[in-house]
Amino acid sequence: MTDASPFADPKNLDDKIEETARFAPKFGADGLLPVVATEAGTGRLLMLAYMNEAALAKTIETGEAWYWSRSRGELWRKGATSGHVQKIAEIRTDCDQDAIELVVEQTGPACHTNRKSCFYRIVVSADKLKMKD
Amino acid sequence: MTDASPFADPKNLDDKIEETARFAPKFGADGLLPVVATEAGTGRLLMLAYMNEAALAKTIETGEAWYWSRSRGELWRKGATSGHVQKIAEIRTDCDQDAIELVVEQTGPACHTNRKSCFYRIVVSADKLKMKD
Repeated sequence: MTDASPFADPKNLDDKIEETARFAPKFGADGLLPVVATEAGTGRLLMLAYMNEAALAKTIETGEAWYWSRSRGELWRKGATSGHVQKIAEIRTDCDQDAIELVVEQTGPACHTNRKSCFYRIVVSADKLKMKD
Repeated sequence: MTDASPFADPKNLDDKIEETARFAPKFGADGLLPVVATEAGTGRLLMLAYMNEAALAKTIETGEAWYWSRSRGELWRKGATSGHVQKIAEIRTDCDQDAIELVVEQTGPACHTNRKSCFYRIVVSADKLKMKD
């Protein structure tokens, strides 16, 4: 948490973090929060990605999903190259404020493999997967 | 990844991790994977938690959700004290195999605050939350 952070520090809450009306996201030691994107209307799980403070601030400010790419080490506007942008319908946080749900209107597939959702395989045993459907 | 791991090492795949039928979960540097629990039937997002290898192995073996509690530093059978167990309908993994979706039949509320889902607050600004509904 830097001095320039736009977010409240979860350590400085008056209320219990579960009940407060203050947004005080708890970023991990790596500066990241896990973010679950679900589809507006259906509630269907689309993908899981990560945000740092800058990505979360830009998402709130622009109404489009921004993430932190752990593999590329950079801020990433979802759909910047593919066109598969996510328009924010709602941003939610969980009881402990250490995870985010983005309810999104997804243009095209959410997954970089061109599938609608990233969760397209079922674990059938400790060693085996099968495709869904 | 220890020698005793029941899971394949993602470094030893013949196929691309996105297309392989081999389950080779990519645990983080902290030995954990983020896990999203969704409700069987509705697909509704219930909670986000973490698993280590032992939790994932026990979940596959028993058909009930086991997690790793980061705050308590211990394996945790969901519902062990509350009775709010999660019966596994399906386990899914994502394109990169670094996240898990558990499709569950949830007994009682999923959240420790006794709400159905942990995501019961909406972010209305960088500083403010409001309760859903």
